[in-house]
Amino acid sequence: MIKQIEEHRSCRFFSDKSIDKQIIRAIAEAAVRASNTGNMQLYSIVATTDRELLDALAPLHFSQPAARTAPLLLTFCADINRFSKWCRLRGAEPAYDNFLWFVNAATDALLASQNASLEAEANGLGVCYLGTTIYNAAAIARLLDMPSGVIPITTVAVGYPTDTPSLTDRLPIEAVLHEQRYHDYTDSDIEALWAERESSEFTKELLEQNQLPTLAHIFTERRYTQKDNLAMSQSYFELLCKQGFFNQQK
Amino acid sequence: MIKQIEEHRSCRFFSDKSIDKQIIRAIAEAAVRASNTGNMQLYSIVATTDRELLDALAPLHFSQPAARTAPLLLTFCADINRFSKWCRLRGAEPAYDNFLWFVNAATDALLASQNASLEAEANGLGVCYLGTTIYNAAAIARLLDMPSGVIPITTVAVGYPTDTPSLTDRLPIEAVLHEQRYHDYTDSDIEALWAERESSEFTKELLEQNQLPTLAHIFTERRYTQKDNLAMSQSYFELLCKQGFFNQQK
Repeated sequence: MIKQIEEHRSCRFFSDKSIDKQIIRAIAEAAVRASNTGNMQLYSIVATTDRELLDALAPLHFSQPAARTAPLLLTFCADINRFSKWCRLRGAEPAYDNFLWFVNAATDALLASQNASLEAEANGLGVCYLGTTIYNAAAIARLLDMPSGVIPITTVAVGYPTDTPSLTDRLPIEAVLHEQRYHDYTDSDIEALWAERESSEFTKELLEQNQLPTLAHIFTERRYTQKDNLAMSQSYFELLCKQGFFNQQK
Repeated sequence: MIKQIEEHRSCRFFSDKSIDKQIIRAIAEAAVRASNTGNMQLYSIVATTDRELLDALAPLHFSQPAARTAPLLLTFCADINRFSKWCRLRGAEPAYDNFLWFVNAATDALLASQNASLEAEANGLGVCYLGTTIYNAAAIARLLDMPSGVIPITTVAVGYPTDTPSLTDRLPIEAVLHEQRYHDYTDSDIEALWAERESSEFTKELLEQNQLPTLAHIFTERRYTQKDNLAMSQSYFELLCKQGFFNQQK
């Protein structure tokens, strides 16, 4: 397996050593090699290293350690602004301000982000994806001056890690890999796929600490509750509309 | 730069040599190493190698050469079905049937797909992303038996390539990389960023063939027209709702 893929883990604590500009550029150069829709490159990467700005971004990522300690936050955005500007400058009428192009542009941005993450790791850096980008996307977009046509989709925190966390477990490969067609799961499939994780010491401790009956309840009642899910769902979709990715009827 | 990242190109013609099951598994093993939301692994990979089924999928990808000739199509799906089933089996009430979790699950699927693509290339295979997945997502979901809670987000065509296309050009790195904050583009920025591409021989030939005044018009009037964009935008969003990713108000 490609070394960086095999050894990838999310690093959440970084030293204060800053990252050379050339390395940031090399990471971006790797990002742009990813496939993208029609070679339109419908994404932007905001590379923030300024301490004051990082300190303003951290709370928008719920001040999680990776966001607080990373010397570099790479905010990946779906971006139809640049391409649309070019079209208009050429007298061509762009029609990318709709949901299809949110999906296309977000896809471009995410494939680029994965290349960037692997390349950062190849440079001795550690990375952590910040899913919190979606939760506070409006505030992040505002802080980073994103105009209409641009929306943040993910953030990669990058830095020199101060620890080496162990690899995270995964469900058996059969959980995600379907032969020929999608094969829906029976109850006994589900039992088998989660058996190892549910019986682990780690899970037992987690349930003890949280006083909850199953690992599933940790997710539904602690980590990602219905109330939070619906609020964030609503706010991200509103931002999508506000930033001009849902003008279905022109 | 990581070799597979540096040398990535979209291969569109494949020999009929089939791909060993072990290699398909190795590709999936690389996919699952990617970061994912809360280690919930909200994606599925449908690996189709059956010739009859491939022949049924190809027209849904507009019979583009990569879809017609690849011995393996990997359809990556956002999947809240498996996780929700597990929650219910444990008596926990999942609330992932909303837009937030479409975005989270699609992100998981796309990061996994990029790992899969690079790992396929490390195994001597060529790949091509099929953006057409979004255009005909409903028919693809139906053909591949995807239940509620599952939606295709991208497809990677994989095979032994019969040619080695040259690397595709990219805009200068300054086009996509922003320092500190997003810096919006002036007209002269746009002129500078597209100058090289617009003055290329390839562009000149394209304009000649299409009898259009600028490269931008190739995109807006030929490749991705307003009419198509809006129709596909509508149909993908409808599928999103149908598959249960937009139950905002429960």
